[in-house]
Amino acid sequence: MVSVPVKPKVNKHAPVSRRWLRDILAALYRIRPATRADVASHAKLNNASVSRGLQQLDGAGIIRKVGKLDSRGGRPREVISLEPSACTFIAMDLEGVTVRCTLTDLLGNFRLRWEEQVSLGQALPVERVFAGIDVLLRDATPAQRERVQAIGVSFPGLLDEQGCLTAVNLGWHDVPLERLLTERYRLPVFLERDEATCIRAERSHGLAKQARDWMYLIVSNGIGVGFVVDGRHVSGHTKMSGELGHVTVDPHSTIQCQCGKYGCLETIASTPAILRQYGELTGSTASSLACIRLAEIFERARRGEVSALAVVKRAAEALGFTLSYAVNLLNPELILLGGDIVCGQDLILPWIRSEIARHALPQLASAVSFAVSDLGPDIRLRGAASLAFHRCLRDPSLLARLCRIA
Amino acid sequence: MVSVPVKPKVNKHAPVSRRWLRDILAALYRIRPATRADVASHAKLNNASVSRGLQQLDGAGIIRKVGKLDSRGGRPREVISLEPSACTFIAMDLEGVTVRCTLTDLLGNFRLRWEEQVSLGQALPVERVFAGIDVLLRDATPAQRERVQAIGVSFPGLLDEQGCLTAVNLGWHDVPLERLLTERYRLPVFLERDEATCIRAERSHGLAKQARDWMYLIVSNGIGVGFVVDGRHVSGHTKMSGELGHVTVDPHSTIQCQCGKYGCLETIASTPAILRQYGELTGSTASSLACIRLAEIFERARRGEVSALAVVKRAAEALGFTLSYAVNLLNPELILLGGDIVCGQDLILPWIRSEIARHALPQLASAVSFAVSDLGPDIRLRGAASLAFHRCLRDPSLLARLCRIA
Repeated sequence: MVSVPVKPKVNKHAPVSRRWLRDILAALYRIRPATRADVASHAKLNNASVSRGLQQLDGAGIIRKVGKLDSRGGRPREVISLEPSACTFIAMDLEGVTVRCTLTDLLGNFRLRWEEQVSLGQALPVERVFAGIDVLLRDATPAQRERVQAIGVSFPGLLDEQGCLTAVNLGWHDVPLERLLTERYRLPVFLERDEATCIRAERSHGLAKQARDWMYLIVSNGIGVGFVVDGRHVSGHTKMSGELGHVTVDPHSTIQCQCGKYGCLETIASTPAILRQYGELTGSTASSLACIRLAEIFERARRGEVSALAVVKRAAEALGFTLSYAVNLLNPELILLGGDIVCGQDLILPWIRSEIARHALPQLASAVSFAVSDLGPDIRLRGAASLAFHRCLRDPSLLARLCRIA
Repeated sequence: MVSVPVKPKVNKHAPVSRRWLRDILAALYRIRPATRADVASHAKLNNASVSRGLQQLDGAGIIRKVGKLDSRGGRPREVISLEPSACTFIAMDLEGVTVRCTLTDLLGNFRLRWEEQVSLGQALPVERVFAGIDVLLRDATPAQRERVQAIGVSFPGLLDEQGCLTAVNLGWHDVPLERLLTERYRLPVFLERDEATCIRAERSHGLAKQARDWMYLIVSNGIGVGFVVDGRHVSGHTKMSGELGHVTVDPHSTIQCQCGKYGCLETIASTPAILRQYGELTGSTASSLACIRLAEIFERARRGEVSALAVVKRAAEALGFTLSYAVNLLNPELILLGGDIVCGQDLILPWIRSEIARHALPQLASAVSFAVSDLGPDIRLRGAASLAFHRCLRDPSLLARLCRIA
């Protein structure tokens, strides 16, 4: 029997708290590369905890030292990074007309990729997606194959309470995707809606890395907005926040929205709405319009074509007006633009800004800056990889596997 | 030298973590009274930590056992409450035309109170406020006096970076209130803007105790809204969130708002705006209007007076329209109404609801419920007491004093 001191001494050989490991790994995923001080500050841990955590992760081969920084007076400071090859993940993006899969390293860098076009109006058999993952696993090295930790999936559409996915673009109705993937690959599977995955990607890899209070506006077939408040994504009481597309902009409108209401923002500023309004103004037939893409309308507006300019201006002003509400209500520091509309940013952004300046409180309008997402079409894949990584951190047994703790 | 075991044993005599004490106290402030299981679940602590924390708080006289609940099969469960008389706080409300001070017990119950009317347009000397606190301290029992932990103040107006308060209603310009109070009473002083204090009061004592995602709408001389998202108050990047009063409702309006813009919600639905529009419709002179109060206009609307009904309906619809944006964006479970407008809730609420139903997505409109604050004119005092308590928990030395830890 050993008598225990009243104030327990720090035991350098005691196991490191899993919470420390989790927070250190999350910090190293965000800051690349990082010093010990960066990690301590980001993970809100003291230096001793960080040192012990890093020691354990180093022993397991999860991190590596990538250099040294001179420090004034003291010892040179070590610069640390996650070891990319320590683990792999499978990331999948089911949005739009292309299904994409990648095998990523620990940091979310793509090592192998597979894509399949989805023909409009035709269903994509789930087995085609499995075939894609099979190709990735076949082409992977034995080490990559052995180190797969989890599968992350960014999905459009609706997931019901039984975990069944309905995604119109793929022709899927009630597909139990999580169960099918788990059974086939014996790996943990994490699904997340595409807006949330985009926000995740922007936080992990994009322009919002440093921001605490920001919003992400996606304008494509629909219009949605994601809020991050004090560093946390706002999901809402029934997980339906961010429906900017369905605020009423024109109460007298006779155009009915998909949602059943009239005069929603989506009837003015979404990609299909811009195309429709351009067709109405120019008297184009539906068949001739089918060939015109949004980028072409932006190009015509740039050349000074009156109809194109009018439609784009109306869309941008409606976006700016509705965003002025969000700015007044939530006082964000950054609005990040993504989706189809990115290709017309030179036209759209100045109008959005001037409407916000007109309709939001001056102190709030001047506190917000604007940026355009630079993650491109791979944004959801990057988000899905980040999803898989962060969900593994949350689960004690998956974290232990990732850190190679017995 | 004692050899330390690899897995340290739990030491029942080691000091209890201050974080545990803080989280247990916060849980007991919210849940009254509570079982151990309630505390563990609310404070997110395990049973052993809760037991040790409660033991220490019991020893210090901060909590008491108030009864036992039968439990199926097991031992009866003890019901615990904070001991009200263990500590006292001074709470102050500087809003409006009455300055209020109270001495509260640990749970925020008022033990002594003092009030002073502020004559409109006349400055209230800061010394009058001191005199009020002096009266409270004079009338307190020696035990109450000795146990004052802190002063909490709910203020209107602006606090600059040097801690100087400008409050138009009191005729105060750059008053260093915090410093003056600290110097005079040698107590920690915590100041908070009135909207935030109201939200605090609703969370600690009001109808929003159980809600995680809700908003608080205050309509009085101005219009503001406070958001609580996943249990946390949203303050915004520059601490200016919630400016619902300055969203543009009528872009073609010729009525200029105090903020310089045109057609803001405040020019339609605030108390002065309702009075102004009623005057315009009825052709009343400014001097005859000065005698009419908002409650009177609601009363005339109830009696079916056309002008009163029109003005009240316009205000309510504008509130509903702007709230529909907030509902679509943030997907709250509850909207709580406060301020002057509460006295017309029977008229206002149905119009607000129907506008939200018309302009928000049906799934979001049906997810939100409505309630009217029942805390009355003491709401900010209750919030100020809660502020003082919770700020003491945050500060290690104040927490130690509150818990009587050496």
